[in-house]
Amino acid sequence: MNLQIDDQGRLRHFLSVDGLNRDILVDILDAAESFAGVPEQTVKKVPLLRGKTIVNLFFEASTRTRTTFELAAKRLSADVLNININASSAVKGETLLDTLRNLEAMHCDMFVVRHADSGAAHFMAAHVQPHVAVINAGDGRHAHPTQAMLDMFTIRRQKGDFGPLCVAIVGDILHSRVARSQIQALNMLGAGEVRVVAPRTLLPLEVESLGVRAFTDLKQGIHDADVIMMLRLQRERMQGALLPSAHEYFYRYGLTEKRLSHAKDDAIVMHPGPINRGVEMDSQVADGPRSVILQQVSHGIAVRMAVMSMAMRSREAAAREAT
Amino acid sequence: MNLQIDDQGRLRHFLSVDGLNRDILVDILDAAESFAGVPEQTVKKVPLLRGKTIVNLFFEASTRTRTTFELAAKRLSADVLNININASSAVKGETLLDTLRNLEAMHCDMFVVRHADSGAAHFMAAHVQPHVAVINAGDGRHAHPTQAMLDMFTIRRQKGDFGPLCVAIVGDILHSRVARSQIQALNMLGAGEVRVVAPRTLLPLEVESLGVRAFTDLKQGIHDADVIMMLRLQRERMQGALLPSAHEYFYRYGLTEKRLSHAKDDAIVMHPGPINRGVEMDSQVADGPRSVILQQVSHGIAVRMAVMSMAMRSREAAAREAT
Amino acid sequence: MNLQIDDQGRLRHFLSVDGLNRDILVDILDAAESFAGVPEQTVKKVPLLRGKTIVNLFFEASTRTRTTFELAAKRLSADVLNININASSAVKGETLLDTLRNLEAMHCDMFVVRHADSGAAHFMAAHVQPHVAVINAGDGRHAHPTQAMLDMFTIRRQKGDFGPLCVAIVGDILHSRVARSQIQALNMLGAGEVRVVAPRTLLPLEVESLGVRAFTDLKQGIHDADVIMMLRLQRERMQGALLPSAHEYFYRYGLTEKRLSHAKDDAIVMHPGPINRGVEMDSQVADGPRSVILQQVSHGIAVRMAVMSMAMRSREAAAREAT
Repeated sequence: MNLQIDDQGRLRHFLSVDGLNRDILVDILDAAESFAGVPEQTVKKVPLLRGKTIVNLFFEASTRTRTTFELAAKRLSADVLNININASSAVKGETLLDTLRNLEAMHCDMFVVRHADSGAAHFMAAHVQPHVAVINAGDGRHAHPTQAMLDMFTIRRQKGDFGPLCVAIVGDILHSRVARSQIQALNMLGAGEVRVVAPRTLLPLEVESLGVRAFTDLKQGIHDADVIMMLRLQRERMQGALLPSAHEYFYRYGLTEKRLSHAKDDAIVMHPGPINRGVEMDSQVADGPRSVILQQVSHGIAVRMAVMSMAMRSREAAAREAT
Repeated sequence: MNLQIDDQGRLRHFLSVDGLNRDILVDILDAAESFAGVPEQTVKKVPLLRGKTIVNLFFEASTRTRTTFELAAKRLSADVLNININASSAVKGETLLDTLRNLEAMHCDMFVVRHADSGAAHFMAAHVQPHVAVINAGDGRHAHPTQAMLDMFTIRRQKGDFGPLCVAIVGDILHSRVARSQIQALNMLGAGEVRVVAPRTLLPLEVESLGVRAFTDLKQGIHDADVIMMLRLQRERMQGALLPSAHEYFYRYGLTEKRLSHAKDDAIVMHPGPINRGVEMDSQVADGPRSVILQQVSHGIAVRMAVMSMAMRSREAAAREAT
Repeated sequence: MNLQIDDQGRLRHFLSVDGLNRDILVDILDAAESFAGVPEQTVKKVPLLRGKTIVNLFFEASTRTRTTFELAAKRLSADVLNININASSAVKGETLLDTLRNLEAMHCDMFVVRHADSGAAHFMAAHVQPHVAVINAGDGRHAHPTQAMLDMFTIRRQKGDFGPLCVAIVGDILHSRVARSQIQALNMLGAGEVRVVAPRTLLPLEVESLGVRAFTDLKQGIHDADVIMMLRLQRERMQGALLPSAHEYFYRYGLTEKRLSHAKDDAIVMHPGPINRGVEMDSQVADGPRSVILQQVSHGIAVRMAVMSMAMRSREAAAREAT
């Protein structure tokens, strides 16, 4: 049974790119297109989710991600409840399932979940009532699918068709939930070639089985690429055994104008943010003409509005059909 | 002078069950009935408190309780301000009264107060301006009246009339503001018999003067009961001298399917949440067919909407009459 | 180039009183007058900023100031995002500029900024896109202009014309961003005489160059004054070398009924709050008939509504003119 798609083929929950199909991804991108203009209107709200209650259930602090979901929900006219679980009932020893049941009993309609454990969003989706939708806002090392979809949306807006594209993902592939979701989405949307570029210590074993070509040399890895997706290097990682130092990392994998010249002339540079300037890339690239990093942020709102409204609409339809 | 009821007999503040009367309690339950269906509508909002500002003034952290009040306020279309005082002006040495005066000057209309000191809500109600309403969201060991009223609402929905009912309250009666409010409400609404069940160390002296029968044996205490209201055992208590251990407590007072068989066949089991599974009751009971624990959570929203709108309406009427 | 006023003479950002002119200050006071009645309406909201997103970007915790801006924004029907930067991306090493760019990319319309560094709000205003407005909610020792304007509004409501007034500002002039903004506003609005009263250690060098008369004796300083504006004494200061003790401070500079008799009979007493009772003044004065401290709090909402709506209107007009 597919948790994410209901028997009518509609998006029920949004947990990972894995388990979805090309049609749904395209639906999300098309819906996001319709929302992309909303923030430019004088009154940047649409009444689609008026009267709905959306809970940002964050078991892991992330102001940045929480903010984008909160804005997306508010622009859909929903009521938003921010719950940071570290500071609350987790302390009282309430289980995840009890938290869920309680919020359901309060007639909340959607959970946006961030959790340090891989699979937390799936677990919740497997246990919620039929009228409730779950959106994964990042679970452990597993997935961060709205990030991947805003990346896809940005690529499509910049480059059009995915077919002819060569896309290089650069950074800590091993630990990145973002990379995992990006690779799945790119392959599902038919990107011509997907590459990963990283030190050997930050590449998963048998990474090619994910449908990518692996490189340990940056120049080779981005050679003739149309799209370069940099990953954020977690500071914790820089102090570990897997990586010598931030300085050394930049020396070998940091993106500079000079290195960027190995990619196609019209290659775009992406990053999920926040950037470690001087580690993943220098400021000349981050703020340069190839960078679409701020467009990614804008598109993040539109894509989250798309996913939220699609999932909510399918849950409402399901509720109507059930009666 | 009765702080809670104005000279027209209307609910002015909601501070404790004590000091109210049967008619007002029934009014609250009836109003809650009218709100109970709101969350099931597609747009689950009513415009009753549109343009009003409600302040959740929490001097004691409680995400759970704060969330229910926030949802209730938003479904009444009010604007909500969450103020956690530990993290703010209390640090700067501002007194409770100055905090109050300042928020009043900002034209806030209602204070939902949670405080570690018994009497804090009464103190505020005694000092606010006539157009402002105060709702007690738990003060020290004194009262937690919205919890008691949502319990009454749940009982009435399940059992109808209070007259023939035998209700057993089980747990730390001595320290529980919930129990105190429940006993008052049950007696005021005319419940046939109210019992308390606890180890002798967790029973108040002369507990019978509250209008209850006291038991130290669980089986006897719940024998033929229609309603069993379990209290939450505070973890702090388990480490104190009053109680041997959580394990020992469960052994003597934990509710199991087997023990539940001593109550009436159609007895319901209640708990204010969050449950300590394996302490107050085992999961079979908590999630079993007799449990109405999640209904209590749902009803909590309706009851809080009822109390908020009744108090606000009476303050508006008073303001009109004053001019 | 004047960051605060656009080429049409409209308020673009509100960063400090310095750099504005008398006409704009009067415009703000007049606009505030039109908003002062809003909180007294049954539905205390106006739809002026509906669909706009206002970010409270607080790099320094201040529940009190954040609350007033949040209320002002909500009463203008805006969506409000509260971001406390200590607890978020600052930890991840994101720069102020990156934070700004990201929130702009999310189509936020206004930043209300509080920062420990003088000049932070100016820096942001110098770097935001043309359609975004910046409001300074206090930056280091530099300025707190909405506080100064609510003080001016309170004085105008109490005293009418500024021309004949003698105003004494009492307290830690040296470290106070409030005092700096007040002095500028009073001089710009043409107050007859502006005095500062403080121990010599808490007076800036060459303070007279700010356009004030300096006093170290309280009685002389408030002699025949129409308005006495007390400053809040920071507790940190009381433990430093500049000041002997809170007790000693009160002994020399604390306002009592007796000392107040040296001012004019109808003199008013102001304080930005929260008051240290028994340090800056005793409770008899704070709660007495001359005190307009709570009016200041009320007026704070109206003045912030005025500044927000003026800046937003000019940004919208600028956006229209640009296309």
